[in-house]
Amino acid sequence: MSQVLHAPSAGPRTLPSLSTLPTPALVLDRDRMDRNVARLSAIAARHDVILRPHLKTAKSVEAARRIFPDGPGPITVSTLAEAEYFAREGGYRDITYAVGLDPAKVPRALAIAASGVDLKVTLDSVAQAEALGKAARDAPAVCAAFIEIDCDGHRGGLSPGDPLLIVTASELAAGGVPLAGVLTHAGDSYGLSDPDALAAAAEGERIAALSAAQALRTAGFECPIISVGSTPTAHFARNLDGITEVRAGVFMFFDLVMAGIGVCDIDDLALTVLTTVIGRKAEKDWILVDAGWMALSRDRGTARQDVDQGYGLVCDLHGRVIPDLIVDQANQEHGIVTMRAGSARALPDLPIGTRLRILPNHACATGAQHDAYRVVEGDGDMVIATWSRMRGW
Amino acid sequence: MSQVLHAPSAGPRTLPSLSTLPTPALVLDRDRMDRNVARLSAIAARHDVILRPHLKTAKSVEAARRIFPDGPGPITVSTLAEAEYFAREGGYRDITYAVGLDPAKVPRALAIAASGVDLKVTLDSVAQAEALGKAARDAPAVCAAFIEIDCDGHRGGLSPGDPLLIVTASELAAGGVPLAGVLTHAGDSYGLSDPDALAAAAEGERIAALSAAQALRTAGFECPIISVGSTPTAHFARNLDGITEVRAGVFMFFDLVMAGIGVCDIDDLALTVLTTVIGRKAEKDWILVDAGWMALSRDRGTARQDVDQGYGLVCDLHGRVIPDLIVDQANQEHGIVTMRAGSARALPDLPIGTRLRILPNHACATGAQHDAYRVVEGDGDMVIATWSRMRGW
Repeated sequence: MSQVLHAPSAGPRTLPSLSTLPTPALVLDRDRMDRNVARLSAIAARHDVILRPHLKTAKSVEAARRIFPDGPGPITVSTLAEAEYFAREGGYRDITYAVGLDPAKVPRALAIAASGVDLKVTLDSVAQAEALGKAARDAPAVCAAFIEIDCDGHRGGLSPGDPLLIVTASELAAGGVPLAGVLTHAGDSYGLSDPDALAAAAEGERIAALSAAQALRTAGFECPIISVGSTPTAHFARNLDGITEVRAGVFMFFDLVMAGIGVCDIDDLALTVLTTVIGRKAEKDWILVDAGWMALSRDRGTARQDVDQGYGLVCDLHGRVIPDLIVDQANQEHGIVTMRAGSARALPDLPIGTRLRILPNHACATGAQHDAYRVVEGDGDMVIATWSRMRGW
Repeated sequence: MSQVLHAPSAGPRTLPSLSTLPTPALVLDRDRMDRNVARLSAIAARHDVILRPHLKTAKSVEAARRIFPDGPGPITVSTLAEAEYFAREGGYRDITYAVGLDPAKVPRALAIAASGVDLKVTLDSVAQAEALGKAARDAPAVCAAFIEIDCDGHRGGLSPGDPLLIVTASELAAGGVPLAGVLTHAGDSYGLSDPDALAAAAEGERIAALSAAQALRTAGFECPIISVGSTPTAHFARNLDGITEVRAGVFMFFDLVMAGIGVCDIDDLALTVLTTVIGRKAEKDWILVDAGWMALSRDRGTARQDVDQGYGLVCDLHGRVIPDLIVDQANQEHGIVTMRAGSARALPDLPIGTRLRILPNHACATGAQHDAYRVVEGDGDMVIATWSRMRGW
């Protein structure tokens, strides 16, 4: 559904520009995204592992095509609706659904598999394995299952040494469900910022996954895929021996949280929210913009980092950061822009009607507030394409 | 676009039920919503003021029809896209756009007016008044303008005594733009919980609006509408003499923030997110559900209240609160459910596949994460209708 908004040969240029686009709007710098993808692809190649991007961040087939132009993947998704969308719109066929399986969703997962998609699901209990095996018995196609491993106490998954690991694998085997392998996610790495600590988190992820795989293999189970990943650990891993694939999502766009962790620089951030100044309160040194939490999301992920960026860091129309200017408060359709507390700088003069761009705390959350990307190239302010975003479950 | 999912005469009952609906899903208890609407309508009638509901919360023409079945309003909106949607889908014609006017949006506002909508806009500067007057000169229809008044330093607006009030009104008059009146919003009332303090906030709102109107009238301007409102002040106002209309939005659904303020009881909350248990971590007393921040939003509005509800308070399938059980953490598609810190109660046994309903912190933010409401009546778990939600700008 990529809608190219101009063709160079089509006569006078009538590109929409960031100066005229209705605000608020989600703007994607394609050059930065391509550079971010190339960087992690090179890291994966150097470690000789497969990169399986998590498309829960982009949720866009046009963005996915910048990595895999014609399918089939490998990709990761966070909902079955994403799996259906990427299969239908982009021909993706190698898809891992990396959220613990709800037994009631098994028929839908099997229907996706029956449509020709190699859909792998994720589980960490005998109950889920049993539900999958039971439904798979009479299905035309079956989903292989990952057993989720807990490497850092962040969320779900079995500890690598948990005896339930073997019980769960046995239940899968009894139900005729292929074991895809083991999958883990070092979610706690989001709370780190020291390179050595990040490298240690990556090593913890690797060791947890390999230990679990070893336990399964010792018990006689094939465990073909060893899948690890989070954007921070994917970039800071020093050793991926034994790992077959790495998953990461937010790396495509990056965001202020990732910059605070040290995974990227501010000028790697590919996503901004275009906004317009709609008011000012001189006595409070406030500027009001038309991007509130509806356009930015309520995510305050930098609040726990060394540099709290409020609801986002403010740039001019060309994406150049205005030092210390942040969105300090957000109502539904109003952002309150001020200088960061303690800044020695004066509030710049930004009259009503001025256009600004806001770098988000969390690209996944901010993206989710919008239905489309307005795509620009490099420092340009011409919109060269509109890319779709899907949502829902 | 109301899609009635059953007709009683259509044979065997095949209603979707909350037991089988794919999760996560947004569930609306229509009886509770009707009761909340009736309550504030009665308050407005007692004060002899018009209730102009703010539809930025519901964003649904089917929900609006429960108040005004056939239009024309009065309603309030937070985006021009809402104005267009309610005009097109529901025949609403008396619409106030209560966010400060971006000069670049003037042509679109005038186009809505030209389509037969009495669209009133909001501004608080000479620059906005000038832009509106200039564009209105050659337009087939003009928008009347409210001057926004600041009653509590919460966001935008002119102080009632600001000399710019008269300058702005003069600029409107010079441009041939009718003055709709004055409009204010006691946003700081969201931080209160004492009934007397809330009544005082309502009185502050009234006095600010009346003072501004008086200043305008003294200077020779007609000021027909005196518009105040926020859900807390609308419910706690003791005197609305001189006020012509009250605006409120979240009152239709209520939420945990409003319950924390004391505007409503927990069993007034009309909105929940239906979710399914997808995992458990016995050693952490965690239950994992398939409603993360994508389904709940990142809103943590109760964090600053006496009772911090995490990302939401957990109920059983029938909407009965499970005491002390909250969503403590939220990832994109995972909620981590635990007992509230300090609770003496034990974590209930909720096996994988169990269905729960989560009461949200902030109905506006949680609603915005979904494309539709699944409507139930009272304590029933049958889905009697699916109502649309609009989004975007």
